[in-house]
Amino acid sequence: MKKKLLVTLAIMTSMVISGCCCYASQKVEKVEKVTNDNYVLKVLDKVNTPQDVKNLSLSEMNLLAQDIRYAIMKRSNTIGGHLGPDLGFVEATIALHYVFNSPEDKIVYDVSHQIYPHKMMTGRKEGFLNPDKYSEISGYSNPAESEHDFFVVGHTSTGVSLATGLAKGRDLTGGKGNVIAVVGDGSLSGGEAYEGLNNAAVLGSNIIIVVNDNEMAIAEPHGGLYKNLANLRRTNGKSWNNIFKALGFDYYYVEDGNNISELINAFKKVKDVNHPVIVHIHTLKGKGLEAAVENKEAYHYIAPGTLDEDNDANKPKVETYNSITTSYILEKQKIDPSILVISPATPAATGLYKPIRNILGENYTDVGIAEEHAIAYASGVAKNGGKPILEIMSSFVQRTYDQLSQDLALNNSPATILVFGGGISNADMTHLGIFDIPLISNIPNIVYLAPTTKEEYIAMLNWSTSQKDYSVAIRVPTGDVVSTGVADTTDYSKLNKFKVEEKGKDIAIIAVGNYYQLGEKVKDELSKKLGIKATLINPRYLTGLDEDLLKSLKRNHKLVITLESGVIDGGFGEKISRFYSSSDMKVLNYGAKKEFTDRVPLDTLNKKYHLTPELIVQDAAKCLNLKIKKSK
Amino acid sequence: MKKKLLVTLAIMTSMVISGCCCYASQKVEKVEKVTNDNYVLKVLDKVNTPQDVKNLSLSEMNLLAQDIRYAIMKRSNTIGGHLGPDLGFVEATIALHYVFNSPEDKIVYDVSHQIYPHKMMTGRKEGFLNPDKYSEISGYSNPAESEHDFFVVGHTSTGVSLATGLAKGRDLTGGKGNVIAVVGDGSLSGGEAYEGLNNAAVLGSNIIIVVNDNEMAIAEPHGGLYKNLANLRRTNGKSWNNIFKALGFDYYYVEDGNNISELINAFKKVKDVNHPVIVHIHTLKGKGLEAAVENKEAYHYIAPGTLDEDNDANKPKVETYNSITTSYILEKQKIDPSILVISPATPAATGLYKPIRNILGENYTDVGIAEEHAIAYASGVAKNGGKPILEIMSSFVQRTYDQLSQDLALNNSPATILVFGGGISNADMTHLGIFDIPLISNIPNIVYLAPTTKEEYIAMLNWSTSQKDYSVAIRVPTGDVVSTGVADTTDYSKLNKFKVEEKGKDIAIIAVGNYYQLGEKVKDELSKKLGIKATLINPRYLTGLDEDLLKSLKRNHKLVITLESGVIDGGFGEKISRFYSSSDMKVLNYGAKKEFTDRVPLDTLNKKYHLTPELIVQDAAKCLNLKIKKSK
Repeated sequence: MKKKLLVTLAIMTSMVISGCCCYASQKVEKVEKVTNDNYVLKVLDKVNTPQDVKNLSLSEMNLLAQDIRYAIMKRSNTIGGHLGPDLGFVEATIALHYVFNSPEDKIVYDVSHQIYPHKMMTGRKEGFLNPDKYSEISGYSNPAESEHDFFVVGHTSTGVSLATGLAKGRDLTGGKGNVIAVVGDGSLSGGEAYEGLNNAAVLGSNIIIVVNDNEMAIAEPHGGLYKNLANLRRTNGKSWNNIFKALGFDYYYVEDGNNISELINAFKKVKDVNHPVIVHIHTLKGKGLEAAVENKEAYHYIAPGTLDEDNDANKPKVETYNSITTSYILEKQKIDPSILVISPATPAATGLYKPIRNILGENYTDVGIAEEHAIAYASGVAKNGGKPILEIMSSFVQRTYDQLSQDLALNNSPATILVFGGGISNADMTHLGIFDIPLISNIPNIVYLAPTTKEEYIAMLNWSTSQKDYSVAIRVPTGDVVSTGVADTTDYSKLNKFKVEEKGKDIAIIAVGNYYQLGEKVKDELSKKLGIKATLINPRYLTGLDEDLLKSLKRNHKLVITLESGVIDGGFGEKISRFYSSSDMKVLNYGAKKEFTDRVPLDTLNKKYHLTPELIVQDAAKCLNLKIKKSK
Repeated sequence: MKKKLLVTLAIMTSMVISGCCCYASQKVEKVEKVTNDNYVLKVLDKVNTPQDVKNLSLSEMNLLAQDIRYAIMKRSNTIGGHLGPDLGFVEATIALHYVFNSPEDKIVYDVSHQIYPHKMMTGRKEGFLNPDKYSEISGYSNPAESEHDFFVVGHTSTGVSLATGLAKGRDLTGGKGNVIAVVGDGSLSGGEAYEGLNNAAVLGSNIIIVVNDNEMAIAEPHGGLYKNLANLRRTNGKSWNNIFKALGFDYYYVEDGNNISELINAFKKVKDVNHPVIVHIHTLKGKGLEAAVENKEAYHYIAPGTLDEDNDANKPKVETYNSITTSYILEKQKIDPSILVISPATPAATGLYKPIRNILGENYTDVGIAEEHAIAYASGVAKNGGKPILEIMSSFVQRTYDQLSQDLALNNSPATILVFGGGISNADMTHLGIFDIPLISNIPNIVYLAPTTKEEYIAMLNWSTSQKDYSVAIRVPTGDVVSTGVADTTDYSKLNKFKVEEKGKDIAIIAVGNYYQLGEKVKDELSKKLGIKATLINPRYLTGLDEDLLKSLKRNHKLVITLESGVIDGGFGEKISRFYSSSDMKVLNYGAKKEFTDRVPLDTLNKKYHLTPELIVQDAAKCLNLKIKKSK
């Protein structure tokens, strides 16, 4: 069922450079309607390398920008993608490649949410024009694809540091060439970005940092920095107070960061400079698509079909663990004004959409991309009577190990950390959710809980937000909501009590969180194929063992199977292996191998990791020297 | 053998406030010589609570400062301590307690290297005056000691975030009182500090951040920020360019940050403000002790006896793993100008003293307290032809998990990360070195090596700095150097090959790094007490198993014992347990329990964790049902 793509290519009216111009006053004119079928490339078909860009006239470059926008929209709408940031950085990328000589001049894209135009101009346009080849090109910077990419990146705020390293490597080895870091204003709230700026400023040689100021992180940006950026925009870069100059940078400002000609002029000025320089450019996130300009957060990343005419935003919503979380929080706020929901700049990813944030008001803080601060801040709030609930993605919680340990756990601050998106998936290698169990569960004092149903999740939330003794993390389940319909009345203050869901013998399955349902299937398969009525255990706690229960299993069990949706190394299962290592109990641990996988289909991973009931039962039979019954 | 303490109490001449005054032009006058025996307290004996400070006259407060300095020096010289930062913050602490009402007004000390004066004025002076009670009071902020401390801290750059949290908790619960964060200029290079400032600036209510600018981190500070601070000092806080104002803070400057009267005036001005404010005070690190003022880095923290008359800095130096590292690096620099030694502001802790840094010149970067940047920077250097060698403490490497994973390992950047100080110790709970194995070894792609001798260490350094395929971390041994005198010719590019040092049967001991020597003792004890000639294995690799070797052990071994100087949870031994979990091989894992221990003597820990040959052999006998031979 093919849907019609209805997007609008727009060209900005030229903007007044001087004075206090800002995007609120800019007109977005529709110049051409394009559909899936009738858009004809004007220039992109002739561009294969950055060298080809250099041979274009200004008007050709503007046509190239249109072509690139078309490809960004069509591909993103087909397989999902970072729409807004890429649309906003088209002209800047063209200008960069016109002025600099990649790859001798090295451009490092921070987080690389804005790298599609770069990819299209560096030999990878087929990955954006040919639907059959979309999946061959990743959405992020990737040196395996091209000599024009220098790092695999996908987490923010690292670009300046990486670029400073490239520049220092160049200087140590007598190398040549410019090093350019492209970093969004949103990424600048991250501590690593600041650490990078602080050091880049004293490098003493060529480094050019392009600050792509589109007035947004994923959501609106937060923090004092953004007032300074606004001030700089208002004054056309002339404000006497300038954080970049304060840090020691030479500084240039380009008000119309979507004007190729002005960008070329600015980049020409700084090319081959012998010192650290900032080029602060003001761009329009989502440029070319009215909806993306009007609702920048929603169009930062779009799911497939978002731009389709018949995409119905009002279709009935199913309950998700995100919506359960949000409902819980809103109910909580009504009875407890001391709760504080915290997001490190990824509110929508965890269900904290703008209307929810508006309701939460003072009970909500977006700290910006500042996961470290988020944890310490939560600790402080908890120590002074507040009830902080931090919502964070599994892939990003790993930015906070020291804060979880020192600021939080060592202080036993009763904060609640909700870890979203944890589990084995087909994600990009930069966004795997498989490391949070080893990361969190080996820190003393923290209680890390893994609910298996909606009711358990809510009971754990209730306990965590009402107690004062522990720092608690909860691994929010992923996938479809499982509901028993029966309230969970467990007293979670009795730590590390595993729940025996079904009592059997010979084999016990300990199935963690997300994988509890897999555990049920393994139990059925054991019954079917080996005639064994296995014990099924929901451990619920990832940070301690139920030693009494584990000991009791020795009486009439020979094998314990652990299932966790995460890397095995350092995880939950290994602790079970250790517990039984001096006994006769056999243990089989299941989970992910310690590796970075990149967009590997889940089926492939499940087969590789033996994460299917059939393969697990085969392993169990082998381990216990049993014969598998043939299927009828 | 009692040594004579010869320290000098000095009072600064009053300083010119206006114009470009800096400490280079300030005179330090000796006013009184004090020794261990003859110093008589003038005021401190009458001060038990902050309230007592409020009742003092200015001249009494100045005498109190002298008393406090005496106690800082004597205690630090007896049991070791943070001398310079505490000496520099005496007057400011007095002024803080004079103006504010602790604990209703809450003072959060970043890293708390400057907290001794606070402790002395908040009921804990006996811990600084009575040598029998020194060990009862920790060197860091600790709520278990006093209601005037709010967090356990010991890592830098967290104070602003924690304080912002306290302030938000106050606001949510309708609380009162000022929240004050005290943060050193050195700590401001840390990303978490910046994230904290960025968010504190938009708090919208009372928070006071005292920037204690003593022109130093532990060593000299590094980065663009410090030019701005210098500029502010030069202009008496009036520079048009001001990073704090850029971030949105109200701003006050106190040039003589050791002048109680001026400090009181400044603090009175900001007390009860309804918005975020910075009070930037210029203090003299080491004030009161000439040597500490002249050599601020060496006197940041002093070992016991440093101030003694007969302390001979020229006594013959023994070889240490630090000195081996430094010698290696200096030799390397001679033949390879592309090496880059990186320190995140702790150079002396790893042997990179000033003369060494001077020799290294452009081959050295101190990135400031910026561990995250340090890793990403190293990755960039490695990707552009340089050979980065990052020296970092185990306790601080945990500030870099995401960077190790994303910036380094995911990119296979061939950097060398030297992890110092890893191992079970009697350290403060904030500085334990037991978490680096779980932290690093569960990240894909990294090769984490654990040498057991000088020769292995050098061979690993040679391999790491000459290869281009892997990100390598090396756990530098602690304690006395063990040297075989025979060069290690192992090819470390053949990953995960464990070394069988002695071949035996029945029991195999796998002894990691630091604990190899313990393994030898266990082997001897097994022979003596059980008549077993055990196999002794040096695994060398912490990031992968030698599966062939482990399989081969099954033939004639019944028990494998693992020894690692770190927390067992998520560590090396658990992987051995997992490997054998479906076989008949028994495994016993030894290491630290998952807990924060606080200055617990090593003997106590060894007994608790069964880390003695006798206890291990008892466990082994029990596991294998063997009888222990009685000692003759």
